[in-house]
Amino acid sequence: MKNYTSLEDIENLEELIFEARELKKQNSAAEVGKGKTLGMLFFNPSLRTRLSTEKAAKLLGMEVMVMNADKDGWALEFEDGAVMNSNKAEHIKEAAAVLSQYCDIIAVRAFPGLVDREKDEADVVLAGFEKYATVPVVNLESATGHPLQALTDAMTVSELKGEKKPKVVLTWAPHPRALPQAVPNSFVEVMQKMDVDLVVTNPEGYDLNPAITKDTPVVHEQAEALKDADFVYVKNWSSYEQYGKILSEDPVWTFDNKKLGLTNAAKIMHCLPVRRNVVIADEVLDGKNSVVIQQAGNRTFAAQAVLKRILENSKK
Amino acid sequence: MKNYTSLEDIENLEELIFEARELKKQNSAAEVGKGKTLGMLFFNPSLRTRLSTEKAAKLLGMEVMVMNADKDGWALEFEDGAVMNSNKAEHIKEAAAVLSQYCDIIAVRAFPGLVDREKDEADVVLAGFEKYATVPVVNLESATGHPLQALTDAMTVSELKGEKKPKVVLTWAPHPRALPQAVPNSFVEVMQKMDVDLVVTNPEGYDLNPAITKDTPVVHEQAEALKDADFVYVKNWSSYEQYGKILSEDPVWTFDNKKLGLTNAAKIMHCLPVRRNVVIADEVLDGKNSVVIQQAGNRTFAAQAVLKRILENSKK
Amino acid sequence: MKNYTSLEDIENLEELIFEARELKKQNSAAEVGKGKTLGMLFFNPSLRTRLSTEKAAKLLGMEVMVMNADKDGWALEFEDGAVMNSNKAEHIKEAAAVLSQYCDIIAVRAFPGLVDREKDEADVVLAGFEKYATVPVVNLESATGHPLQALTDAMTVSELKGEKKPKVVLTWAPHPRALPQAVPNSFVEVMQKMDVDLVVTNPEGYDLNPAITKDTPVVHEQAEALKDADFVYVKNWSSYEQYGKILSEDPVWTFDNKKLGLTNAAKIMHCLPVRRNVVIADEVLDGKNSVVIQQAGNRTFAAQAVLKRILENSKK
Repeated sequence: MKNYTSLEDIENLEELIFEARELKKQNSAAEVGKGKTLGMLFFNPSLRTRLSTEKAAKLLGMEVMVMNADKDGWALEFEDGAVMNSNKAEHIKEAAAVLSQYCDIIAVRAFPGLVDREKDEADVVLAGFEKYATVPVVNLESATGHPLQALTDAMTVSELKGEKKPKVVLTWAPHPRALPQAVPNSFVEVMQKMDVDLVVTNPEGYDLNPAITKDTPVVHEQAEALKDADFVYVKNWSSYEQYGKILSEDPVWTFDNKKLGLTNAAKIMHCLPVRRNVVIADEVLDGKNSVVIQQAGNRTFAAQAVLKRILENSKK
Repeated sequence: MKNYTSLEDIENLEELIFEARELKKQNSAAEVGKGKTLGMLFFNPSLRTRLSTEKAAKLLGMEVMVMNADKDGWALEFEDGAVMNSNKAEHIKEAAAVLSQYCDIIAVRAFPGLVDREKDEADVVLAGFEKYATVPVVNLESATGHPLQALTDAMTVSELKGEKKPKVVLTWAPHPRALPQAVPNSFVEVMQKMDVDLVVTNPEGYDLNPAITKDTPVVHEQAEALKDADFVYVKNWSSYEQYGKILSEDPVWTFDNKKLGLTNAAKIMHCLPVRRNVVIADEVLDGKNSVVIQQAGNRTFAAQAVLKRILENSKK
Repeated sequence: MKNYTSLEDIENLEELIFEARELKKQNSAAEVGKGKTLGMLFFNPSLRTRLSTEKAAKLLGMEVMVMNADKDGWALEFEDGAVMNSNKAEHIKEAAAVLSQYCDIIAVRAFPGLVDREKDEADVVLAGFEKYATVPVVNLESATGHPLQALTDAMTVSELKGEKKPKVVLTWAPHPRALPQAVPNSFVEVMQKMDVDLVVTNPEGYDLNPAITKDTPVVHEQAEALKDADFVYVKNWSSYEQYGKILSEDPVWTFDNKKLGLTNAAKIMHCLPVRRNVVIADEVLDGKNSVVIQQAGNRTFAAQAVLKRILENSKK
């Protein structure tokens, strides 16, 4: 593994999940990262990703340097050929090249603006680091994908599924703010690589990018989708079609015990943070079917597996 | 010691002070924290507490992850059953449970609002972490108490007192902003556990919570209180009775050399930061009776003793 | 080396550069810093300085504690005898003395206000730490100097120069914001200590402090200055004479390939961040004569050499 900017960077998902689960059992330093430095750059807030990735790196013996990109440092310019006479003090060309000399791996979080779809899909911040960094780059959630979360999700399904091929449902839920599609995008992509029956359900107008859902069934009747589900991933996202818009906050999509009753006693997943009683009802989150805390705990080991692969690859 | 959220968590104060003083002599890594992680969450500014606790953890061999809670991460909801459709993105239930998987000890600073006394006394942030975290919780100053500071204060008195039982005076001083009662509360509580004669002096209207002062004498004549004092702890706090209000900025309460002259050449203490020439005059802070720097230096060893106890207890 | 607050602290520049270059070859931990802590305080943004100094300290085995001074902690008062009844919560006397107990070296960044020349030249923040800290102090760029950058610059010239004594030109370039003179000041000072022919060129009104340039030629014709240059350091600064003012944004001073053509195929230097196509044209930064990335990479080793000297000196 050279970079980890999208799920495409995973050569063998099954092996990588196995590695993450082994690391979880050990919970000890592998020393493969000794003398190496992870630089983490945040253009947006982060709790789980920040701390689990820092923890993962330290479990591998790495040093970690964390920066709140725009607050601690300089506003970055990403456009080629820009005449930099306004508020951007540094170009990504220099920033990425310089950081590559201080860090052995650069990890970046940069959310979408949710205004200009084309611009968001260009994923300029992550793509800029990928283009100009001379060390491996890890995606800590970009405008369009969150592959560390997706690997965690795959690991969690892998841990909890039984013998039979599970039915996995990704269901939209309401939310007061316009959220990115990065998490559902990457969840769909990673489930498509696993031996599961995947169904996406959301209100009309909320279909995800068809280039991502591909031939995964997308149904607009939540009840129909939830039938016999073994795993339900609840998540809000803003509209892809009417890009970045909130078309509905209909509480009928909130996931509660009535919805849970439609499933095959499904395990309930969410990437967190979760708006209680808006996205998922207290009764579900506090009930025995919720696995959101175990899922969040797996973030460390997914990150550890990815960093370990990248470090091993760098040594070759 | 399981948690350290209030002075009630200290089983034997004398032993703990002894431990802190031993750690100060060694000033070296005890390795009891090797492979363990301290997560520090700040909802408010901090210099001494932040750096001394980080230093203490590292002296014990721990890894440290620091977050400015609301700025780096997500705004937290603390109310049970809340419908989270406004500006709070994450509930304490998830935040505490998730952090407990990334950290072996969680340390939290959260000041009071000083508007609603009942709400501040519920100490919702610290209590939330204590309730929902599955790892030990350390109080880095909460709405009502600052037990790491109090242990430091007790250690400092212990270092500096002679053979005789000392007279210790806590005196109010003016300040341009409304400050919490956390530091004076915890100082009173810790001194009540020590073999000292404790007196509190403050203007009328500034009496601390009587549930804390209990039978400790509270006198409104500063000069009377200071007579024969061996230690004077100078500190501002806002009114408890007219909750959170500034009732006086009377400079007659500023601690200067004239006040010092009333004492038994007392050692002058303050938790810092201190407003010079408002709370304490330059002539006192720069004089030989001030022990505020030594006191701040002890923060490291008090924190180290507490973290060490918690780590040792976790191993059982 | 006791402190590193200005170039005056360097006893033997040649030896220090040699040390930095040796450290660059090793790129490994010297362990001289084991058990020691570097505290870094930022009153202003930083990317290279922050990360390269943190990296340098860790390569030496040190622990590092980083604070955004005014945001994470308390606003500081620097005036002696101040009655602290406004917005400053802590005096430099306490802050420096306390930090000296938590840290073995204190490193500080504090930019000038560029309004009051006399005040900026007093360099109150750095001078305050130097005066009141009881441990060594490192300048991470102060109001008037940036000696870590200057050592990097000297190291870079030392690496790249051939046998002959090089001609080194410092040229002003336009910029949309008023910038400090710290970098050009320190560059001039460090070059004056090396065996080079140094020339400064800038528009009229932009002459640097004559107490710094001394007998270094200052010419107002850029073309004349660039003739036969082996190194060109491009940098903007605001006016020293009309203190802090922007007198010109004339793009004729932008460094492009036409200007490069006037030189002896000079190596082009800049401290970064650089405003592309305002300070230096893309064609130069992306061309083979630019050494700005190598120069930024050297920051780590210059910082490492300085910290190592200070640590070694502290042991005596």
